Amino acid sequence: MTSQDYTLAELAAFTESRLEGSGECRIRGVAPLESAGPDDISFLANPKYRAHLADTRAVAVILPDTESADAYDFAVLRADNPYLVFARIARILLNPVPRVIPGVHASASVAAGARLSDTARVDAQAVVGEGTVIGDRCRIGPGVVVGDNVVIGDDCRLDANASVLDGVRLGARVHILPGAVIGGEGFGFAHAGDHWEPVPQLGSVVIGDDVSIGANTTVDRGSQGDTVIGNGCKIDNLVQVAHNVHIGEHTIIASGTGISGSTRIGRYCTIGGSVGFAGHLEIADGVTFTGMAMVIGNVPEAGVYSSGIPAMPTRDWRRSAVRFRQLDEMARRLEKLEKAMENTKERDEQ
Amino acid sequence: MTSQDYTLAELAAFTESRLEGSGECRIRGVAPLESAGPDDISFLANPKYRAHLADTRAVAVILPDTESADAYDFAVLRADNPYLVFARIARILLNPVPRVIPGVHASASVAAGARLSDTARVDAQAVVGEGTVIGDRCRIGPGVVVGDNVVIGDDCRLDANASVLDGVRLGARVHILPGAVIGGEGFGFAHAGDHWEPVPQLGSVVIGDDVSIGANTTVDRGSQGDTVIGNGCKIDNLVQVAHNVHIGEHTIIASGTGISGSTRIGRYCTIGGSVGFAGHLEIADGVTFTGMAMVIGNVPEAGVYSSGIPAMPTRDWRRSAVRFRQLDEMARRLEKLEKAMENTKERDEQ
Amino acid sequence: MTSQDYTLAELAAFTESRLEGSGECRIRGVAPLESAGPDDISFLANPKYRAHLADTRAVAVILPDTESADAYDFAVLRADNPYLVFARIARILLNPVPRVIPGVHASASVAAGARLSDTARVDAQAVVGEGTVIGDRCRIGPGVVVGDNVVIGDDCRLDANASVLDGVRLGARVHILPGAVIGGEGFGFAHAGDHWEPVPQLGSVVIGDDVSIGANTTVDRGSQGDTVIGNGCKIDNLVQVAHNVHIGEHTIIASGTGISGSTRIGRYCTIGGSVGFAGHLEIADGVTFTGMAMVIGNVPEAGVYSSGIPAMPTRDWRRSAVRFRQLDEMARRLEKLEKAMENTKERDEQ
Repeated sequence: MTSQDYTLAELAAFTESRLEGSGECRIRGVAPLESAGPDDISFLANPKYRAHLADTRAVAVILPDTESADAYDFAVLRADNPYLVFARIARILLNPVPRVIPGVHASASVAAGARLSDTARVDAQAVVGEGTVIGDRCRIGPGVVVGDNVVIGDDCRLDANASVLDGVRLGARVHILPGAVIGGEGFGFAHAGDHWEPVPQLGSVVIGDDVSIGANTTVDRGSQGDTVIGNGCKIDNLVQVAHNVHIGEHTIIASGTGISGSTRIGRYCTIGGSVGFAGHLEIADGVTFTGMAMVIGNVPEAGVYSSGIPAMPTRDWRRSAVRFRQLDEMARRLEKLEKAMENTKERDEQ
Repeated sequence: MTSQDYTLAELAAFTESRLEGSGECRIRGVAPLESAGPDDISFLANPKYRAHLADTRAVAVILPDTESADAYDFAVLRADNPYLVFARIARILLNPVPRVIPGVHASASVAAGARLSDTARVDAQAVVGEGTVIGDRCRIGPGVVVGDNVVIGDDCRLDANASVLDGVRLGARVHILPGAVIGGEGFGFAHAGDHWEPVPQLGSVVIGDDVSIGANTTVDRGSQGDTVIGNGCKIDNLVQVAHNVHIGEHTIIASGTGISGSTRIGRYCTIGGSVGFAGHLEIADGVTFTGMAMVIGNVPEAGVYSSGIPAMPTRDWRRSAVRFRQLDEMARRLEKLEKAMENTKERDEQ
Repeated sequence: MTSQDYTLAELAAFTESRLEGSGECRIRGVAPLESAGPDDISFLANPKYRAHLADTRAVAVILPDTESADAYDFAVLRADNPYLVFARIARILLNPVPRVIPGVHASASVAAGARLSDTARVDAQAVVGEGTVIGDRCRIGPGVVVGDNVVIGDDCRLDANASVLDGVRLGARVHILPGAVIGGEGFGFAHAGDHWEPVPQLGSVVIGDDVSIGANTTVDRGSQGDTVIGNGCKIDNLVQVAHNVHIGEHTIIASGTGISGSTRIGRYCTIGGSVGFAGHLEIADGVTFTGMAMVIGNVPEAGVYSSGIPAMPTRDWRRSAVRFRQLDEMARRLEKLEKAMENTKERDEQ
């Protein structure tokens, strides 16, 4: 996988990390501690994996300041954030995003009125609709459907079988992973006595720069006004973003999370997996939710929030789950006892 | 986005809502209170947004009876259900479902034995299988796969990259959103000691009229007998409907919900986001589950049901989560104390 | 649906089940108890459906030893696992997996350097990339995208609109259901102060033999090293398998479950629907999680584990949910009362 090699000293300079020991060794690849070879650099970010330090064959390891390296032979790069330095070195060494080869595959279907950059690529069986504009160095992957009047900025990648529907606007360097659906109709129905009537979904989806949208994730178009995803947001697989949701810049959302209609999430939030948001909520900047949290109220202050019950042996769980239904009654009985005890004491003290 | 305009009086008549003030103003569009212009009608359904009434530039607003309009300049349409009247006016003014242009795109692949209405459309890169019948004014979107022997009623829309597999039957006016999978093989495996053996999934999927199936939602074919979705059901994105599930008419299901095999859900149910249903359950008509509810028993009576723990600061949550495991023990200690207190009292009273 | 018929005695012999009564009747089909006709065999596995035994028109029924058949006219096959015997008889009678007709559809796009077995099929609008190898009797379904340098073993089925991306390796008899995404980029971003930087995802996905991957499920490629799914695993729809997850052989995972990065799940595990796993966990062999369990710690021992709160009437739930936040305080008050009671007793006994 190696494409180029550098000395450790060069990599330290490029990434502004601190070299310990000789910087002369040549680095050709990156690998996890347990599978690294003698040309590889590795890293330790999660102390869980510390035991692998003793056995690694890596020639150099990126370590946080808190981790002693006295017992080991490898060279060391010191970094506040070893994972970030690792990421940068991996990008320098391996350049894993393949260069885009311009052109339209013979089997693709591009509307006469679409405007594609000369440097963009449209892969096999892809579809590009009327009035759509595609920027420089974009890659429209195989089987992708891009609707009419879509605007796609420079350096975007749309992976296999993704769908980006009519009127959606993507910034620059947006990455849409396979099977994602951007701009599906919002889920809006008005109750009409004995049936539901569709509410026209007239808005679109606007996605900023440097956004990543995961595989099979769905981002619905707004009902009135747009659904908006800010610059730098990173959204994982199988996430639901309902109509008119706004997500602030640089917020990161793990897989399986669902965000109901018109909820607004702040900037620099961190949202764990399978979190559920009710609709019409306001979440402040800098809020973290741990996985499976159930968010049914506004969160006006930054901080870390959680809910859910961690798994336990089923026998124990059954007993606790039954008692959960009695919790209010238990609390009342506790109060009553406290009063009775108070009375007893008072009487005794008389 | 305007395509036609009407006077407010005409719109009041069409929607059987009550006009307050002059009906002569012309309405050209619909918009949220905060972005409406002087040709637009807006509405207030959620009192959360009441503050916008003071600032709106809308020429008319649809209001419930409970909402005073004395302080404002706009004309008023009174309605029991402002959202429904808004939906109808939006459809009248904007007609947002594009007219279907009949024909088969040159890049589509339609089997020789498929029978398509002359008024149907098959878009770019779509596939239609042998023996499949497609009704009037249907739109088979780009990249859609329709299998063999599928029956699709009139006025259906199948959006980009959806898959409707062999033998599935859709009623009229069914809307399948992008990436949805209808008729994938059910998840049936029999335990055979040291491995799992596939159980043939011999049934199909039958979907009634006026059903909407969300983006990347999956509806599996029955193992024996069919999976059935009744008329008028509205199902959101990323929902799982397992084999042999039956969903009664006009039930609405929000995103992320999973329904396990052979569960039967009644008519006119309202199911929040990310609700989980165990298999083989019976849910009555008119049941509402709030988001993230965990349904592991039958629900024989209409009503509103919930579960889950709302998110709270993580520090507080940790403490409560630990105590949850001790709940049964706490309940027993509480009982013991009550008895002791009873004894103390009795003794005191002797 | 019948393709062939057998006597009951023959089916008993093929499936090593015990015949009760005459084995001469001819069986032409399989059906549920309530819809079976006089040529069909049915089965009872779930005692919930016992009432249907009295009314079934099936000529024979597969029953466990524990179920008396004295009151009924049908012939009986006795089996420890009626569902398994049913599955095998259904496969014998109906052979539901259609034979693969070799060839490449005219609308498919197969790269010049791909190597396809003569007995494989590539359906309409499918894409097969450079350097990819496809084994005997494989069926690449309509709209499927197979990337470059993929290796697909014999007898695999890739259903409509699935995506299997560059470098993924599938064993033999793997079934990828519609819309599934195998080998999408892992979700790896390093925090860089005011933004997130992508971490190159350099690994791939390796899937063993006899694996099934559900509709719209996503399996991400590893960041370093591969994501690995062992032989015989069965994974349902809409499941997320993050980068570098390892799943042991013959583990079965129901719909909606999410497994975070680098978690390792053992062999022969049974994982219910919508279970959530944190990252970097170790789960032993033979562990069962019930639906919606929240797994945030290692599970070093086989057993059954659960969490979550079963749905209850919303009024009751509100009260309990409020008390949940007070649980720790309640526990402390309980302790205090116990001490007070102890003191009272001691004093009384003096």
